[in-house]
Amino acid sequence: MIRSSRLLAAAFAVVIAGPAWAQGYDALAAAQAAANAKPGARSAPGHVIPVPTNEVSPQAQALIGNPYPPTFNADPKNAAEWHALIDARAALAAKNVPAMKEKFGVSVEAKTIAGVKAFIVTPKVIPLRNRNRLLVHVHGGGYVFGPGEAALPEAILLAGFGGFKVISVDYRMPPDAPYPAAMDDAMAVWKEAVKMAKPKNMAIFGTSTGGAMTLAMVLRAKAEHLPLPAAMAPGTPWSDIAAIGDTYTSNEWVDNVLVTWNGWLGKAALLYANGHDLKDPQISPIYGDFAGLPPAILTSGTRDLFLSNTVRTHRKLRRAGVEAELNVYEGQSHAQYGADMNSPETKEAFTDIARFFDKHLGVK
Amino acid sequence: MIRSSRLLAAAFAVVIAGPAWAQGYDALAAAQAAANAKPGARSAPGHVIPVPTNEVSPQAQALIGNPYPPTFNADPKNAAEWHALIDARAALAAKNVPAMKEKFGVSVEAKTIAGVKAFIVTPKVIPLRNRNRLLVHVHGGGYVFGPGEAALPEAILLAGFGGFKVISVDYRMPPDAPYPAAMDDAMAVWKEAVKMAKPKNMAIFGTSTGGAMTLAMVLRAKAEHLPLPAAMAPGTPWSDIAAIGDTYTSNEWVDNVLVTWNGWLGKAALLYANGHDLKDPQISPIYGDFAGLPPAILTSGTRDLFLSNTVRTHRKLRRAGVEAELNVYEGQSHAQYGADMNSPETKEAFTDIARFFDKHLGVK
Repeated sequence: MIRSSRLLAAAFAVVIAGPAWAQGYDALAAAQAAANAKPGARSAPGHVIPVPTNEVSPQAQALIGNPYPPTFNADPKNAAEWHALIDARAALAAKNVPAMKEKFGVSVEAKTIAGVKAFIVTPKVIPLRNRNRLLVHVHGGGYVFGPGEAALPEAILLAGFGGFKVISVDYRMPPDAPYPAAMDDAMAVWKEAVKMAKPKNMAIFGTSTGGAMTLAMVLRAKAEHLPLPAAMAPGTPWSDIAAIGDTYTSNEWVDNVLVTWNGWLGKAALLYANGHDLKDPQISPIYGDFAGLPPAILTSGTRDLFLSNTVRTHRKLRRAGVEAELNVYEGQSHAQYGADMNSPETKEAFTDIARFFDKHLGVK
Repeated sequence: MIRSSRLLAAAFAVVIAGPAWAQGYDALAAAQAAANAKPGARSAPGHVIPVPTNEVSPQAQALIGNPYPPTFNADPKNAAEWHALIDARAALAAKNVPAMKEKFGVSVEAKTIAGVKAFIVTPKVIPLRNRNRLLVHVHGGGYVFGPGEAALPEAILLAGFGGFKVISVDYRMPPDAPYPAAMDDAMAVWKEAVKMAKPKNMAIFGTSTGGAMTLAMVLRAKAEHLPLPAAMAPGTPWSDIAAIGDTYTSNEWVDNVLVTWNGWLGKAALLYANGHDLKDPQISPIYGDFAGLPPAILTSGTRDLFLSNTVRTHRKLRRAGVEAELNVYEGQSHAQYGADMNSPETKEAFTDIARFFDKHLGVK
């Protein structure tokens, strides 16, 4: 339904605004004014958006200028096709892991915790004030991508830039294990992790799907009267798993990471939800009750398909009385703040998260 | 130059992506992938963006759904045409002032300060902790709009929601008085204002042009070794007066308040700058040195043409070691957080600013 109404509207827009473009600015302005003469939906013409350069590092410029990922519009027809796609992407992501371990001087140990696969990521040197602290990481990837070592890059970034010990949860995923398997695994690890450190010295973090899971974990811990972490970092969280939110439309085809909900992303959403209500707060945590949640730091970019997910979450946290910080990077698409370990913006974003955790986590 | 290269690019985009829209999602996706197959500028097709409804108040929905302003593309040819446009817009804005004064129970007194026209906005009841506090307000309007009582709405909102006494500067503007007249007037008032209250009990605030002037005032106070305020609220600041910044393009024709830099906005920019370098930090404060500036709270919206201005400023403040808070409203265009005194989002945004000031301003 979303797809067909949007396409109809887009077709309408090209009829109104399309032919004007070749005629110069005045004709475009007149056509745009005519297309927006009545209250309601905004009609915007095509854009060609240059790569921004002011205060944007060369590394970030390269990310921003990247073509769409070749798999953005993948449409696997069965479990075998999903696995082929998942494996291909995982191989690409895992390829970066050795260089990341090397650069940040962290060790990675595979470990089963409460029957769940996980990794312990340990910096060679842990600063004194982090010795009793422990972070739990849930990776991103639309609930389908990022198994095994492909889960590790973000955990290594925060272990490396922040000097924290991190448990990264290699949770079960579709097509084999839809909701609530991922959340069950993450919560099983959380229940064990709070025995390894004091919850007041702990934080949960993750980006995208990992950001949504961070929120859902804290909501579920609250509901189940489990200890809460002292802080959290839901980075550009997939807090509304349906295509609800302004930038799902305004940044569609602008974001060069996720590109569109109508590609693999929406298919992964339905595969994961497996018939459950997409507004269940454990699936779309924006619909949860945020009262009593720990302080949060959120990160996004102006081209991020999930910018609305991020700002809706930020606002709802603040209105629930939760301290919540928001950082938005110029020109960046989804999760690009963590996409290149050598980008100054990556160092900045993860250093900011580490500083936020340092402010809110106990030491002893 | 900006205009012609953008139009050329837009024309190219419609050739590539345009005809695909009518053929369905798969054709659109293929055309988009082809148009973005090489690194560099992003090519995005036309969008029809529905009015967002989740957590967005009916009042904000109405603002978001508004047609473009009839004057967005005005092109006054001489001083008389500018004055006619300025007067027409001022009459519209000033019409709201009596109802605002009534709703918030504030009194307004016209007063000349250091030879500069200004208004003193005083709440009927000033909370005890605000008795020694004083705010200075610089209005928005592209350095051309908002003279006289048209300057007042935002001053009344913060006086009303925050219970603060506010001096609103009715600074000189083009076409009669280009840069640096506005800044000279604002600084003349600042120099007098710091005799009326202790600077540690004071803040400067303003939206859009007023946000840029807030930053430029604090930069100039620092350069001239004048007292600085204890906090500032540069709301969606026009911190880069040229069309530099990602959302000048990505939110062009999406923002239904400013719409495009190529309308009256860019003409006002050049009229104000009057031949001065557009990268002079007194004209585009993003190019200033933010070290030592007071804590700042910034506000924007996901459709704001100045979202990049806002996030670039936020980031630069943080990197200079300045405490800076960022709030972004779902679906809102430029400055819509202050556009309807009855909108819950307006109450929220101005209450957040008031709370931020309360946190940072001295009491005695």
